Amino acid sequence: MKYYAKPLNRLINELSKLPGIGGKTAQRLAFHILSMEDRDAMALAEAISEAKRNMKYCSVCGNLTDEDPCAICSDDTRDKSMICVVESPRDVIAMEKIKEYRGYYHVLHGAISPMDGIGPNDINLQSLITRLQDEAVKELIIATNPTIEGEATAMYIARLIKPSGIKVSRIAHGIPVGGDLEYADEVTLLKAVEGRREL
Amino acid sequence: MKYYAKPLNRLINELSKLPGIGGKTAQRLAFHILSMEDRDAMALAEAISEAKRNMKYCSVCGNLTDEDPCAICSDDTRDKSMICVVESPRDVIAMEKIKEYRGYYHVLHGAISPMDGIGPNDINLQSLITRLQDEAVKELIIATNPTIEGEATAMYIARLIKPSGIKVSRIAHGIPVGGDLEYADEVTLLKAVEGRREL
Repeated sequence: MKYYAKPLNRLINELSKLPGIGGKTAQRLAFHILSMEDRDAMALAEAISEAKRNMKYCSVCGNLTDEDPCAICSDDTRDKSMICVVESPRDVIAMEKIKEYRGYYHVLHGAISPMDGIGPNDINLQSLITRLQDEAVKELIIATNPTIEGEATAMYIARLIKPSGIKVSRIAHGIPVGGDLEYADEVTLLKAVEGRREL
Repeated sequence: MKYYAKPLNRLINELSKLPGIGGKTAQRLAFHILSMEDRDAMALAEAISEAKRNMKYCSVCGNLTDEDPCAICSDDTRDKSMICVVESPRDVIAMEKIKEYRGYYHVLHGAISPMDGIGPNDINLQSLITRLQDEAVKELIIATNPTIEGEATAMYIARLIKPSGIKVSRIAHGIPVGGDLEYADEVTLLKAVEGRREL
């Protein structure tokens, strides 16, 4: 791209590596960054390097954190009887936002996917087993994604843990609140019917 | 947002200041950056600060550049008889991409907009007048945007320059190539009819 001066070209190039940022958007962002106050642009650059430097995975639950163990794992007021198993740190945020769940988490960093060569040993599962031996956990809520991989992972964990006497539950799948029955796909609708509850 | 650790929160915050990046996208980008290789994330941070440090405006044409005068202004093989007047450095890129125009540029960094209190002295116009006195310019192609402000700026410059004997032209407005007459707005269609050419 001979149109851009080198530093600009480099910036556009780096920005376009981000997910969902195509060439046009990268260009727009780059020009915007150049038009920003020096201070603001530097704040962005520093936020990136600072986050990258200071954020790590919690050695207990695997969540993203700046201190180890993470704020959730070191919160003693939480319900020690429950661990919610999720695929990614973003799922922890989603769960926390409902402000209802008060137990702990375990982040798998992926899901079992034989097609992609990802087995039980390639996700953060071993440390969950260890946690279950150590702690007074009564229920494991499996909140992996409702995908083939997420379901397979849920089934695998359930089979692995159930013999130990810990209750293993799976979050419900069904029609989203505010959703329209007519537009729901068959699998979701089937799950919704299977998961029906008496009123 | 107590859900995020501080460095993560700061990164999301800085990212969401970018145009077109809302809270959800900023979160997605932040998590992506954290999952990137250290080297790649640092490359992004450095590209931002390096671009911000090294990019400046060309003292001749006002274009963004890392060397002064810019690569276009210091290119002697270009056609000295033409200067294309645009509102922003991005417009220079757009013009260069058509690979047809071989003259020089002048970047106004805005357009006259009395409503916003932007007068002729608030844009990079004075240096254009100086350039026209110094150089052997025969034609000024005004490629400001087809907005009220862009048109007003074009009219203003035309009135200012024409007495000096330099030809002042305006790029054509009309139906975009591949566009549909049916869906063109009335003003564009009117401009297209006004700008009709004999076949």
